[in-house]
Order: sequence, then C-alpha cells, then structure tokens
Amino acid sequence: MSAPAAAPRFARVLVVGVGLIGGSFALALKAAGACREAIGLGRSRTNLEDARARGILDAIAEGPAAARAAELVLVATPVGAIEATLAALAPHLGPRTLLTDAGSTKRDVVAAARRALGAAAARFVPAHPLAGGEQSGAAAARADLFRGRRVVLTPLDENPPEALAAVEAAWGACGARLARMSAQAHDEALAAVSHLPHLLAYALVHEIAARPDAARLFACAAGGFRDFTRIAASHPIMWRDICLANRDLLGAELARYQAALARVRAALEAGDGAALERLFAEARAARARWLAGAYE
Amino acid sequence: MSAPAAAPRFARVLVVGVGLIGGSFALALKAAGACREAIGLGRSRTNLEDARARGILDAIAEGPAAARAAELVLVATPVGAIEATLAALAPHLGPRTLLTDAGSTKRDVVAAARRALGAAAARFVPAHPLAGGEQSGAAAARADLFRGRRVVLTPLDENPPEALAAVEAAWGACGARLARMSAQAHDEALAAVSHLPHLLAYALVHEIAARPDAARLFACAAGGFRDFTRIAASHPIMWRDICLANRDLLGAELARYQAALARVRAALEAGDGAALERLFAEARAARARWLAGAYE
Repeated sequence: MSAPAAAPRFARVLVVGVGLIGGSFALALKAAGACREAIGLGRSRTNLEDARARGILDAIAEGPAAARAAELVLVATPVGAIEATLAALAPHLGPRTLLTDAGSTKRDVVAAARRALGAAAARFVPAHPLAGGEQSGAAAARADLFRGRRVVLTPLDENPPEALAAVEAAWGACGARLARMSAQAHDEALAAVSHLPHLLAYALVHEIAARPDAARLFACAAGGFRDFTRIAASHPIMWRDICLANRDLLGAELARYQAALARVRAALEAGDGAALERLFAEARAARARWLAGAYE
Repeated sequence: MSAPAAAPRFARVLVVGVGLIGGSFALALKAAGACREAIGLGRSRTNLEDARARGILDAIAEGPAAARAAELVLVATPVGAIEATLAALAPHLGPRTLLTDAGSTKRDVVAAARRALGAAAARFVPAHPLAGGEQSGAAAARADLFRGRRVVLTPLDENPPEALAAVEAAWGACGARLARMSAQAHDEALAAVSHLPHLLAYALVHEIAARPDAARLFACAAGGFRDFTRIAASHPIMWRDICLANRDLLGAELARYQAALARVRAALEAGDGAALERLFAEARAARARWLAGAYE
C-alpha cells in the first residue's frame, strides 16, 4: 500500500458476492474515490451482469484467480459460504492482496479463515457492517448504505497493523463508524441485539400464522406489528446459518430472555401494575438513551 | 340524525382527550366536511389551548355539560380513565348524543360503559382505531391519521342500527376501513398482534438495559433492533393499563409464545438447521401475505 491510510486508493477491489452489501461496498469506495476499479465474482451471472449494467462493477471476474491483481477482496457471501470462498481464493492471493468480509458472525469466520488461508489469515481482517436489511441483490445496492453505520472489526492477533489500517480505511471511506472488538465480544453482543430479536420476530409470526384463526388475527395487525416483525422478512437461509454459527451464545441469550418473560408473566398474573409500569418506563428510557447516542 | 348515513354531518362533535387520536379525529371529520364544529375537553388546559391554536378545536368545552349540545362524543382518554369520563358525561347527554371511544381494549370498556351509562349504553358504540404510535398530544394530530387504517367496532347488542350506522359513518369519514367483531374477539386478536409484541419489545430492551455491559451491547444495535423495539417507546402507563385490562387473554398469549420459544430453543440446541429454516421461511411467507393484503 503506497497511498497514505487517510486517503487509501485501491487500484482494484474484488467483491465476491455482489449483493446489497458487496455492491454497496463497491459503489461507496468508488464514490469516495478510494477505488479505481471494482470487479466482481458470484454464483449468478445474471446478477453480475446487472451489477455491471448499474455501474457497480467495472468488470466481471472469470474466477478466483482475479484476486491476484486485487489489493483488497471483500467476501460478502452468506456466512455459510465464506470458508469455501476463502479456500478458493487462497492459492491466488497476490503479494499485496488484503481480505475482509461482511459476515454477521465472527468466531466461525475467524476459524474458517484460519483453516482456509493458513498463514495468509494474517491478511484477512474480519468485519461486520451493521447495515443491510431484508433487501438483497445488486439491484438494492447503494453508495450510502454504510454512511454513519457502524462497522465492527474483529482483528486477528496476526494481522499486521498496516493491514488493519488499510481495511479500516476502506470501510471508513464508505462512511462507516468503526469499532474494534474481539470476535467473542462481537458474537455476544450481536446475539443479544440482533440474532435474538430475529428469532423472536420469526417465532411470533410463525406462531400466529400456524393457527386456524390466523386470518382473523392478522386482520387486526397494524403498524406496531409491522415494525416489530420487519426483521422476520429476512432471508431464512442466511438466518439459519447465523443461528447455527452463533448457536451457543444465542442459546444463552434466549435462555436469559425466557427467564425475563417468566418474570413479566408473573407480574401480569399477579396484576402487579406497578412492576409492569416500572419495567415499561425503564425500557422506554433506555431505548431513548440509546437513540440519543448515549451508548456510542 | 337527519343527514343520510352516507354523508353524515355532525353539527357539533365533542372530543374528550384531545391527544393524537382525539385531535386527529376532529381534524379528519372537519377535513371531510362531516363535522361543523369540534369542541374539546381534557385535563391539560395548555394542550387544549394548543389544539385550538392549531385549528383542531373550534372551542374548549367548560365541562361535561357540553355533551348536551353534541351529536357525537369521542372518548379518547387512556383506557383507565374511560369509565370516569363516561360517568361524568352520563347526566349531560342530549336527546341525540351518540358516543364512541378509541380504547385499545374492549371488554373492559363495554363493562365500564354499562356501569357508567346504564340504559344510555345503547348510545355508546365502542371502537378501536388501529392507528397511533408512540407520539402523543394534540401537536401530533393529523387529518390523515386514520386514512386506510382499520377501525374495529365492537357494537353492543343494545345499539340501535342507526346509532351504529352513524358512528361507523363518522369513522368512515376519517378514511378508516371498518370492521365489526365482538369485544371478546377484538381482545383476543389484539392480545396476539399488539399487546404481546409490546410486552416482548419492552422485555427485550429492559433485559439488555439491566446488564452491567449494556453499553457494549447497545453499541452494536442497529436498524433491526430499532424497528423491533419501536413499540417499547410507547407510553408506560397506557400500556400498563392495557396489559391489566386484557390480563387473562394476554397471559394466555404469552404462555403460547413461551411454548413456541421453547420449541425454537430445542431446535437451536439440537442444531436442527432444517427446522429453523422452515420456521423462518414460513414466518417470512406469512408476513409477506399479510402485507400483500391476503388477510384483509
């Protein structure tokens, strides 16, 4: 990397998996002038052609050998495909090629990188952009997807400082607010604030939909239900993989939540209005503090 | 009512509790030309003055005696205050005065109306507009709040057809899509699709906020968490009252949900990816059907 970290310039970035995240990464880097050429690799030729037509990609890579000429590779496939992707890329890394990813779980990605890349894992700086949503495909990509959003990096002990700096500079060029933590700390936090809510939303919709009188119930659902269950529109396979990858920590979060629900139910059955009001008021105040940025 | 039901005209409508719901009702009726004059009653003089300054109210009523000259009264107070409000209005109902409400629970409101109004309960047509949100006060009111939103009416056996028609016409003039069901059916459905989700969202935020490492967890919360917990910004006292009023049915819903979560946890602990994926896919499909209007 000859360019200074403050204004990184990647001559060529390879994006593997040109969906919402991968496509937005390419668009954001190019919009920031941080990348001259974005090339893409993926399973769906149609999607890649679409990404090229939209100006997300400058070229479609013919295979993993394209990594040799890239200074940065973003692996933005589903978590379940990251290990195979890294293994396919491993023989083709150029002397200056760095890698990052966008997986929603990090302990499993780190383990996969060590298996697939061996010593070259030092070039891999794991990342998780806290952005995205239920949309998918290159058609949903946009240059400002990461603007103001948090990207959590979980560096490996063996990442050289300049590799970490270059990958942070790339995500920073996308407008993201960067954070660093261990893969364990990441997976614990995401289990609580992302994976568990997804499970809860899916479970609620499923429970209602499975009833004989589902139509009567859904007919009374309104805006609160819509927002509460928005994350239940997320991709089932992606979320199956996340749940399995973070199974131990997510299971522990679910158990804590079940205990919390048991306490709520006890208050409800006892008609303990004061306890309910206190719980609701404390939750509301904490959420307001969070929205106000008190936990940034 | 001399005007035809299709184009009702209320010379004077009294709104008790001029908040988001009451204020929007007045604005919507006037915007539709269905009401000549809206007068308001409430605890906060400041809020009433604000409502008049905003053109929501044409006048501030001096007391419940204002009901005598009103053809329609909307009771839009918190559910816990409806019985006292109806009791205060009872001696002052004019010969043509009809009443409706906007309470989130209906069995308790029906019982309260029978106690407070006696035989005059025949003039009270209970309603629940499935609109609103975390905002409150007259300042949040808007003429289109009910447009395209569902209003559930739970008529009493003793409501004369013309009373029901007039109240439905008023809500219909606000642009609402009307539904009729029993108070029991309403409270069952709302327990599942509204009251339970509120409880779940409050419980999640509270559980996280109570931990010593809450800051670390909240720092990783993003858009999914924000939408999932939006309803945890709702008013604690209002939701305490709703939970207590619908305690039996909400408790039953919570128990069902706890059983569903136990099944999800078993699948997670067994690493049963197929079961998780099936559950997620079924939930996602059901939600998409709901959003597409399949349950209208």
